[in-house]
Amino acid sequence: MVNKENAAPQDTPACVETKYFRLPDQVSFSLESGAKLKGLTIAYEAYGKLSPAKDNAVLICHALSGDAHVAGYHPGDKKPGWWDDMVGPGKAFDTDRYFVICSNVIGGCKGSSGPNSVNPGTGKPYALSFPIVSIHDMASAQKVLVEHFGIKRLLAVCGGSMGGMQALEWAVSYPEMVASCVAIGTSYKHSAQQIAFDEVGRQAIMADPAWNGGDYYDKEHPSAGLAVARMIGHITYMSNESMEKKFGRALKKQELGYEFSTEFEVEGYLRYRGDNFVKRFDANSYLYITKAMDYFDLQKEGKLMSAFKGVSSRFLVIAFSSDWLYPPSQSKEIVKALKMNGIDVTYCEISSEYGHDAFLLEFREETKLIKHFLDNTFKRMVRK
Amino acid sequence: MVNKENAAPQDTPACVETKYFRLPDQVSFSLESGAKLKGLTIAYEAYGKLSPAKDNAVLICHALSGDAHVAGYHPGDKKPGWWDDMVGPGKAFDTDRYFVICSNVIGGCKGSSGPNSVNPGTGKPYALSFPIVSIHDMASAQKVLVEHFGIKRLLAVCGGSMGGMQALEWAVSYPEMVASCVAIGTSYKHSAQQIAFDEVGRQAIMADPAWNGGDYYDKEHPSAGLAVARMIGHITYMSNESMEKKFGRALKKQELGYEFSTEFEVEGYLRYRGDNFVKRFDANSYLYITKAMDYFDLQKEGKLMSAFKGVSSRFLVIAFSSDWLYPPSQSKEIVKALKMNGIDVTYCEISSEYGHDAFLLEFREETKLIKHFLDNTFKRMVRK
Repeated sequence: MVNKENAAPQDTPACVETKYFRLPDQVSFSLESGAKLKGLTIAYEAYGKLSPAKDNAVLICHALSGDAHVAGYHPGDKKPGWWDDMVGPGKAFDTDRYFVICSNVIGGCKGSSGPNSVNPGTGKPYALSFPIVSIHDMASAQKVLVEHFGIKRLLAVCGGSMGGMQALEWAVSYPEMVASCVAIGTSYKHSAQQIAFDEVGRQAIMADPAWNGGDYYDKEHPSAGLAVARMIGHITYMSNESMEKKFGRALKKQELGYEFSTEFEVEGYLRYRGDNFVKRFDANSYLYITKAMDYFDLQKEGKLMSAFKGVSSRFLVIAFSSDWLYPPSQSKEIVKALKMNGIDVTYCEISSEYGHDAFLLEFREETKLIKHFLDNTFKRMVRK
Repeated sequence: MVNKENAAPQDTPACVETKYFRLPDQVSFSLESGAKLKGLTIAYEAYGKLSPAKDNAVLICHALSGDAHVAGYHPGDKKPGWWDDMVGPGKAFDTDRYFVICSNVIGGCKGSSGPNSVNPGTGKPYALSFPIVSIHDMASAQKVLVEHFGIKRLLAVCGGSMGGMQALEWAVSYPEMVASCVAIGTSYKHSAQQIAFDEVGRQAIMADPAWNGGDYYDKEHPSAGLAVARMIGHITYMSNESMEKKFGRALKKQELGYEFSTEFEVEGYLRYRGDNFVKRFDANSYLYITKAMDYFDLQKEGKLMSAFKGVSSRFLVIAFSSDWLYPPSQSKEIVKALKMNGIDVTYCEISSEYGHDAFLLEFREETKLIKHFLDNTFKRMVRK
């Protein structure tokens, strides 16, 4: 008898499993900093079937707190992958048509090489001896995986937020391998304010004595610091408008208690989100991944236009009206620089009150845009 | 011989001194929560001369991190008070004409009763046994001081940010005592987003083990937590635009070091501001004062218009175009509610790129507006 509660709905990939691709220990993976990593491991999930011509592969890149598990259910799961609304049979990333890959970024904590993985040289977790990684390094590690599948050209590289940075990086670094790029709610560089928010999050983690210079894997983890970092993040993910509508000044109890406990709904929400995050995320990874985003700057000698020279992909750039973390103005700069290079780009600003979170929530609007865009790309690519 | 470096410039109040007004220990000061405080102490500074008719007094209210020392130099000081550009002979708050008072808020840490003051009942610092205070309590304590001077009606109550909340509170709670109100870069209530930023700051402090439930006055202080709280604050005080102009992606060193040390200028700035703040501010006061702001809501049964019934002051409401912490939209709601009550109000949105910090920086524009407004108020008041 099928356990209905745990059975996957029919429109999600039926059976998903995180797999691991590992380079041999003697092979060095070179990073942008010049550092070399041995035994590179990439955790990934793949959905749908790779066509014999290997021309239907789509790479989805995740954001700060995401992982390889983009869709479907793992055995026993009650909640599906982080973008399940978008990935599955008949969905935007139609797994009946496309071979969809999603991998955990390097520097992450969900199976790919990162500060919490074991250094083959010492047998202990890397912690802060893990080299600093960049968005380019994330893309470069994904390329190893894509090549492992024998894919010469991806139909599309797609992502929102930091995932969008990786998608842009792919289009710029490996133009011959990217037929199209979907960049959602993202930027071509981190601004001073974006760096500032990340830096405060990092400082919150490092201020936690349990962080202990990054060396805590066999001890108490810096949960309090990581929770504060996540709370800061959450404020930036929501719009002022959505926060006001969702919480306003609503209280968790009957009346003000004149004490420092959780009184307002919005306080309870932030604490809940912070506490939940520390159960599933590694504080050191938070440092590495935010650092990678802060380093991100596609410009060449201060010019974005120069970065897109030689790029051959088609682009779909999506921004959200109320996203103040990665505001539409940054997306428009990308579009302008692409246009100035004569590159085929479609820009769409989705009117949404959800702020930066919209890239995960406005899936109906995104589906319309992306489904059509991928279909068009596929037709053009096959025609070639 | 006069030491020129330390001599006060001629346009600042020549000799300033923080004074202390203290109610006898047997007198109870009642708070909004119902709690009572014994031995209420108010630290204040006063500049200029109170006229025989006592009709030239102006009360200036400070913001979160301010104090009674609004202008001039204390002996040995190299920097003047926090709004010295605005207070002094011939300035906006012309001390040749007006008797200017500024007092430290209760709950603060600069001489007025607060968590770091000694509980006369125990002989030890209150710490978290200090009662929660509200913006109304701050105004109510200032009223004790104003009455001590024998002043029946203030020519004006003025303030920016949290100081503006106190000014509005005065006009609403003690209408007969306030001839005019100058509310700058402020709000009539804290929104969910404003509460959220405060709450994360409080969580950062409470997450610091040195905070120790607020009991740290004879031990190490929770400096790391307070620094993080202040860093979060600073991001909200600057505009995206001013941060980008001031720092952009400028580095503190020649090139990226691929490490977690301070690399970007903006990181260095935030760390510097955080570290400096902990030298001069008490972490518990940060909790109490942000809580007072979060509690602030002038609305009566959800209506701002009702709050201003019976108010008789003239108003000058000033907002700044790039202030996203206390955006012009909130000021405009105040103006609308005043107008609907037939109250005399002037609204001015100053075009500035400095964000919320503008209330401390745009003193030239503010001077023009406030000087004129006070002069008019004085003429009307005397004519009455």
